[in-house]
Amino acid sequence: MKMKDQLQQVLNNEIPLTNAIGIKVENISNSMVCLKAPLDKNTNHKSTAFGGSLYSLSVLTGWSLVYVILKRFDINAHIVIQHSEIDYLYPVKNDFVACSEEVTETKINKFIKVYKRKGRARIMLDVKIMNGLERAVHFSGDYVIHK
Amino acid sequence: MKMKDQLQQVLNNEIPLTNAIGIKVENISNSMVCLKAPLDKNTNHKSTAFGGSLYSLSVLTGWSLVYVILKRFDINAHIVIQHSEIDYLYPVKNDFVACSEEVTETKINKFIKVYKRKGRARIMLDVKIMNGLERAVHFSGDYVIHK
Repeated sequence: MKMKDQLQQVLNNEIPLTNAIGIKVENISNSMVCLKAPLDKNTNHKSTAFGGSLYSLSVLTGWSLVYVILKRFDINAHIVIQHSEIDYLYPVKNDFVACSEEVTETKINKFIKVYKRKGRARIMLDVKIMNGLERAVHFSGDYVIHK
Repeated sequence: MKMKDQLQQVLNNEIPLTNAIGIKVENISNSMVCLKAPLDKNTNHKSTAFGGSLYSLSVLTGWSLVYVILKRFDINAHIVIQHSEIDYLYPVKNDFVACSEEVTETKINKFIKVYKRKGRARIMLDVKIMNGLERAVHFSGDYVIHK
């Protein structure tokens, strides 16, 4: 199965709320993940995107990137989010896509090397959600992998 | 209508995802709000509570406290979350309750006074989720009210 379909299945089967949010894997590579969600399932009292939905999409985008990296290195570790921060810069008025940073090979290799030595490693990942050409949301998460 | 029922209605009607998360108003006073959610609707791949659900409950707990404060002072302002941080300290393995800090009258009065003078004010609120006697989640959010 393609990695994109595999990730979609993991999200929908393992985290039921992803179905209510309507999360779809939009784009995936060795170093980047984008996830998408529709506005209509995620509105708030102002008919813009609910902050909890924007957060959920962002935290899962980072999580998915770690998942993809671990698959690539054939590592079977637990992935947990430990700390995160989010800035809401502009209201989101359409369907929305969260994209992780394009993580460098140097950063990935260091992360994997620490894990292989200590059985535990941490990676900080940035995710953003655009509203047209404006950056509407900036998320930053600390993910830990452990045996 | 009682404030507790009114808040429950606002959450369910205005933010559809609150129904999928199963959010219930647990407790409410002039200076504190607690919201509850069931584990079974919010599990992750490890059968503990999904980080996005814990965040959503926390951000809405702070939002609800601001809502309650504004109702009390008969102020009709927009409430937006601008920035937040969350620490996941322990996995949550049961139904969970998020409680805001018990906000002081001094802090509330300052918040309302700034709003009345400038048409805009900010309040930082802490929210925690307990796992039995342990603090499992610590959330801190910057809420802005404006005309």
